[in-house]
Amino acid sequence: MLIVTLTTDYGDGPYAGALRGAVLSVDPDARLVDITHGVPPQDVVAGALALLTAVPAFPEDCVHVAVVDPGVGGTRRALAIATDHGVLIGPDNGVLMPVARALGLRSVHALTDPAYWRPEVSATFHGRDVFAPVAGHASRGVPFDRFGPRIDDPVDLDFGAAAIDGSRIDGRVLYVDPFGNAITNVTAADAAVAGLAPGQPVAVAHGGRQFELVFARTYSDVPEREGALLIGSAGFVEVAVNGGHAGRAFGLAPTDDVVIRCG
Amino acid sequence: MLIVTLTTDYGDGPYAGALRGAVLSVDPDARLVDITHGVPPQDVVAGALALLTAVPAFPEDCVHVAVVDPGVGGTRRALAIATDHGVLIGPDNGVLMPVARALGLRSVHALTDPAYWRPEVSATFHGRDVFAPVAGHASRGVPFDRFGPRIDDPVDLDFGAAAIDGSRIDGRVLYVDPFGNAITNVTAADAAVAGLAPGQPVAVAHGGRQFELVFARTYSDVPEREGALLIGSAGFVEVAVNGGHAGRAFGLAPTDDVVIRCG
Amino acid sequence: MLIVTLTTDYGDGPYAGALRGAVLSVDPDARLVDITHGVPPQDVVAGALALLTAVPAFPEDCVHVAVVDPGVGGTRRALAIATDHGVLIGPDNGVLMPVARALGLRSVHALTDPAYWRPEVSATFHGRDVFAPVAGHASRGVPFDRFGPRIDDPVDLDFGAAAIDGSRIDGRVLYVDPFGNAITNVTAADAAVAGLAPGQPVAVAHGGRQFELVFARTYSDVPEREGALLIGSAGFVEVAVNGGHAGRAFGLAPTDDVVIRCG
Repeated sequence: MLIVTLTTDYGDGPYAGALRGAVLSVDPDARLVDITHGVPPQDVVAGALALLTAVPAFPEDCVHVAVVDPGVGGTRRALAIATDHGVLIGPDNGVLMPVARALGLRSVHALTDPAYWRPEVSATFHGRDVFAPVAGHASRGVPFDRFGPRIDDPVDLDFGAAAIDGSRIDGRVLYVDPFGNAITNVTAADAAVAGLAPGQPVAVAHGGRQFELVFARTYSDVPEREGALLIGSAGFVEVAVNGGHAGRAFGLAPTDDVVIRCG
Repeated sequence: MLIVTLTTDYGDGPYAGALRGAVLSVDPDARLVDITHGVPPQDVVAGALALLTAVPAFPEDCVHVAVVDPGVGGTRRALAIATDHGVLIGPDNGVLMPVARALGLRSVHALTDPAYWRPEVSATFHGRDVFAPVAGHASRGVPFDRFGPRIDDPVDLDFGAAAIDGSRIDGRVLYVDPFGNAITNVTAADAAVAGLAPGQPVAVAHGGRQFELVFARTYSDVPEREGALLIGSAGFVEVAVNGGHAGRAFGLAPTDDVVIRCG
Repeated sequence: MLIVTLTTDYGDGPYAGALRGAVLSVDPDARLVDITHGVPPQDVVAGALALLTAVPAFPEDCVHVAVVDPGVGGTRRALAIATDHGVLIGPDNGVLMPVARALGLRSVHALTDPAYWRPEVSATFHGRDVFAPVAGHASRGVPFDRFGPRIDDPVDLDFGAAAIDGSRIDGRVLYVDPFGNAITNVTAADAAVAGLAPGQPVAVAHGGRQFELVFARTYSDVPEREGALLIGSAGFVEVAVNGGHAGRAFGLAPTDDVVIRCG
């Protein structure tokens, strides 16, 4: 019996409920904890970022199930990944890889043994029919290599390295969070290399427009309704508006390129 | 102490929290599991479909509470239904009936004994004041007939049978899920009778428009942004768009009539 | 090991997941229960109302964490409040005060001892780094005064008293719930003083417009799609539409003034 976390793009419909039931049908004592079911539909990058944001806050020895799965029912493989700090289960589309690296990736197994799945597997709902039952068996302590063979070629995904040229950083929006903060692939380390320091003015250019902001420690460092650039809680640079919605204010959306210039 | 699932149209406000507290106030050891709180407001059909989608994935011996209750505080009765696979609790408006039949309906009781309710019952929140406390008592093992007398005339609800005429099926949209899939009352059995087979072209007519789709096994069987008809995970035919939102793409909403023609 | 409830404005992103993980990292046996993560962003009044709506339905001896925290990382203090019916943890911006008074406020402590926080505290996510770990320690039974010194000047917040003049009540909208009910600061006691009685016609004036409604017991007391004024489940007068969305129908939003006239 372990903590089993759930991360999906299922939204507020009944599918997250079916997923929970399918874990509990295998391990009625599993302790289910939601990470989020609000990953934008089929957005594998946002799913990977959600895992990277939340999973490190959990105790070790959890089972983390992530289902953002545009290829469900097709040829993509299903995976279980052993890390130094818990088990990851989900589709082989990269969604698990950034957090796997952060936790310390040990080994990747393909889920191939139907003995650990639901008796009937639908073509459209492997969350319920494959990933949740495997998570239930992992929670019950089934040894990892029973689920299927070790593989060495999981589909990878990273957030892309920001390009730094002096005090200029070329990055990309990964996700706009529910507060409207536009989280980029620019890391705290990138910001340090480019010489960004709290209190400094910065310019953010995007789509032919440029915005003058301040590099801040926290949202309330700038006046109400004004913009700020800051290091968010997962270690990525984000564009924010104190008390407002930066995505709407600056027209920022996932995959948008942004150029940050200091000074 | 049992698993108590919750299905409501309470959305993201505090009412689901009060419901959880009210179960725990009676049985602090109850294991609460959400099915969904995203049933569209007062949409009894969507609530019934959510239960039918998620409840069968749960272990037996759960207590399933469903509150989609436009008649709260009026004359509608409150029910507990015993089935072959767990207990259902909710208002007498049909929301429990499709899943009750699917689980094997044994007996229906009206909730009439206020000893199992909160001491003060509001006129607007029977989820907190009636259904949740009764669920807590059911979780603690209170015998079923204590809650009130057996009745034989619960309000029924079904999803309406699709009409099949050769290769033509006349159906109805029941629910548009968070991915935008428009789930109809056409069953997998109906599709088989009408001769639908994977890979086959199909036409879906609705509101004077007609769309040419493919009958597919899963979403990714068709190219990105193209439409498909398929059997969803709860056994109903749904109109989908691979990587898109079929409800918006085709203008489909609950209660809309659709005509499906094969070949 | 206690029940730990969570109330935030984190919405459907991954932050609620990180909060849950941070509680469990300190007390893996804590029983997490969501109240809501749908408080409108930075809306301290709505957060306070959510707590007041849901917390009294819980058993005693819970730990209630509330994070609606526009001042995160700035100079606002962090608090733990002991009440006659459980512990409250959150920022010192008033969000905890209405429910603290309702539960019976015993003492307020500032959270100042970093021994009970995460080792590294970010400037933007005290939910994960301060409030959740303290909640985990409270759940494990750490004595209350260890978290920091008692203080006597917490930031207060109340919902403002409605002004009653004969049969006229001047009030204010606090929150529009997911059903569209516009919940005001007018209490059931206020309504009684002004002589409101079920079945009585009432006029609600707002923004130069006036609406003729009925003072009802419950939503279905008025015909479908018609408006009603009633006492909601938390004891406040609300403007509702049977089967509809009063906020949209009447143009009511939080902080709007409303004038209610009986007869």
